[in-house]
Amino acid sequence: MPRYKLSIEYDGAGFCGWQVQQNGVSVQGVLETAIAAFAGEAVTVKGAGRTDAGVHAVGQVAHVDLSREIDTDTIRDAANAHLRPHRVAVLAAEPVADDFDARFSAKRRHYMYRIVNRRAPLALDEGRAFRVARPLDVPAMHAAAQRLVGKHDFTTFRAAECQAASPDKTLDVLDVDRSGDDVMVTAVARSFLHHQVRSMVGSLVLVGDGRWTADDLAAALAARDRSACGPVAPPDGLYLVAVEY
Amino acid sequence: MPRYKLSIEYDGAGFCGWQVQQNGVSVQGVLETAIAAFAGEAVTVKGAGRTDAGVHAVGQVAHVDLSREIDTDTIRDAANAHLRPHRVAVLAAEPVADDFDARFSAKRRHYMYRIVNRRAPLALDEGRAFRVARPLDVPAMHAAAQRLVGKHDFTTFRAAECQAASPDKTLDVLDVDRSGDDVMVTAVARSFLHHQVRSMVGSLVLVGDGRWTADDLAAALAARDRSACGPVAPPDGLYLVAVEY
Repeated sequence: MPRYKLSIEYDGAGFCGWQVQQNGVSVQGVLETAIAAFAGEAVTVKGAGRTDAGVHAVGQVAHVDLSREIDTDTIRDAANAHLRPHRVAVLAAEPVADDFDARFSAKRRHYMYRIVNRRAPLALDEGRAFRVARPLDVPAMHAAAQRLVGKHDFTTFRAAECQAASPDKTLDVLDVDRSGDDVMVTAVARSFLHHQVRSMVGSLVLVGDGRWTADDLAAALAARDRSACGPVAPPDGLYLVAVEY
Repeated sequence: MPRYKLSIEYDGAGFCGWQVQQNGVSVQGVLETAIAAFAGEAVTVKGAGRTDAGVHAVGQVAHVDLSREIDTDTIRDAANAHLRPHRVAVLAAEPVADDFDARFSAKRRHYMYRIVNRRAPLALDEGRAFRVARPLDVPAMHAAAQRLVGKHDFTTFRAAECQAASPDKTLDVLDVDRSGDDVMVTAVARSFLHHQVRSMVGSLVLVGDGRWTADDLAAALAARDRSACGPVAPPDGLYLVAVEY
C-alpha cells in the first residue's frame, strides 16, 4: 500500500487533542474522516506528536496508508476541502517508504511556547499565547533553562498520567528569547514526556518573575518529584513547530 | 478636563469597524461604554484611524477627556476589565496636553498587510491574513510598489464612498517583503484614502502573480479611475500598526 507523509497545521482550541478519544473531537479523527471521504476507504492517520487539548501545530507530521496511489497535490487539496470547517489544514503530502513511521522514525521534535509579557489582555492572540502580567527577566530564564538541558530524569516535569516507560529524556535545546512583549521558549528533543514543555515553561516563569532562582529550578529537577514543579503553563501558548527525520 | 491618550489593540472581526454606526458593534462604541462604566460619565473616544469592518489594530491611538484625573494604570486596567468579552484591549494610557488630538495631531500612520502565499487554507490565521494560492513574485511586487510612492492623485485606489476632500496623498513607504510563506506589505503615510491600502495590495497581487507589470500598475495610478484598480484585498490581512505624533 502506498504510504504518504502529511505536514499539518491546526488550531488546538476546540479539539480534545491530537489523538482519537471516546469523548470530544480530535485532530486525528477529523483528518481520518476527511481522507476517508475522498479516498473511499477507512484510513488510520498516525501522528508524530500527541498534542494535548488546546495545543497548536504549525508542523505536525503524520503518515497514512492508502490502497491506491493518489497525486500528492490532490491528497492535500481534497483533504483540505473535506476538513472544512475544522481549523486543520494539510500543508503538504509526499510519498514515503513503507518503513517510514511518523512517530517512531522521528529524530527530534521542535516545540515553541509563546508568552506575551504585558498587563493588557490579548485582544488578537487570546487562546494563541499565555499572557503573563508580571515583568519577566528573560536572560535569567534563559540562563536557568540551561540547567535542564541534557539527559535527566524529568519526573518533576511529567504529568501523573504520562505513559512513557521511563522519565529519562535528553533535552537538546531550551532557549528563551524576548522580542518586544513576546517571550518565546524553544524546546527541542528526540521526544518529550506528557506535559513536559508546559511544566518546564511554568517553572521558568517563576524564575522570570523572581520567585525562583536558577538553583531552585535545578533543585526542582533533582527532586524527581511532581510536587516540586511550578504551575503548568496553559496549552494556549504551545505549538508543535517541526519534526525532524 | 484632563485628556488621555490610549494605545489600543483589537481583532477587527465581529466589529462594524472603528467608528460608531447606527447598525453594528463598533470598537469606538465598546470603548466608550467601558470607559463610561468606570469613569461614571459619558465619554467620547476619538481615534487616529477609522479602520473598516474586519480590519485589525495592534497600535490604534485614541484620546478621551475625563472630568477628573484618574491614574493611567487604573484607566488601562479598568477599561480592560469592562471591555470583556470584546476582543479589544487598552495597551497603555498616558496624560496628554489639551491640544493633542489623536486624529489631527497624527504625523504618520503605519499599516501592515499580511498575505500568506500557499495552497493550504489557514487553520491558525483564518481572518488574520489573506491567503493567496498562486505563487507571488515578491521582488516584482516591491519594485512595482515604488511606482506608487510619493505624492499622487490616488483616485484609482480610493473607495467610491471615500469622504476625503482631495484624492491627493503622499505615500512615504510601500514595501513588500517575504518571510517563508508570509508576504508583508508595509504602508506609511500621513493619511490614507478610504480602502487605499487594500486597493493597492489587491493590485500588487496582480503584479505578483504575473497578470500585471509594474507599468500596468503605474498606468492604473495615472488613469485616476476607480475601475482601473485590481480587486480590493479583504480586510482580514490589514493591521493598523502604529501612529506617529
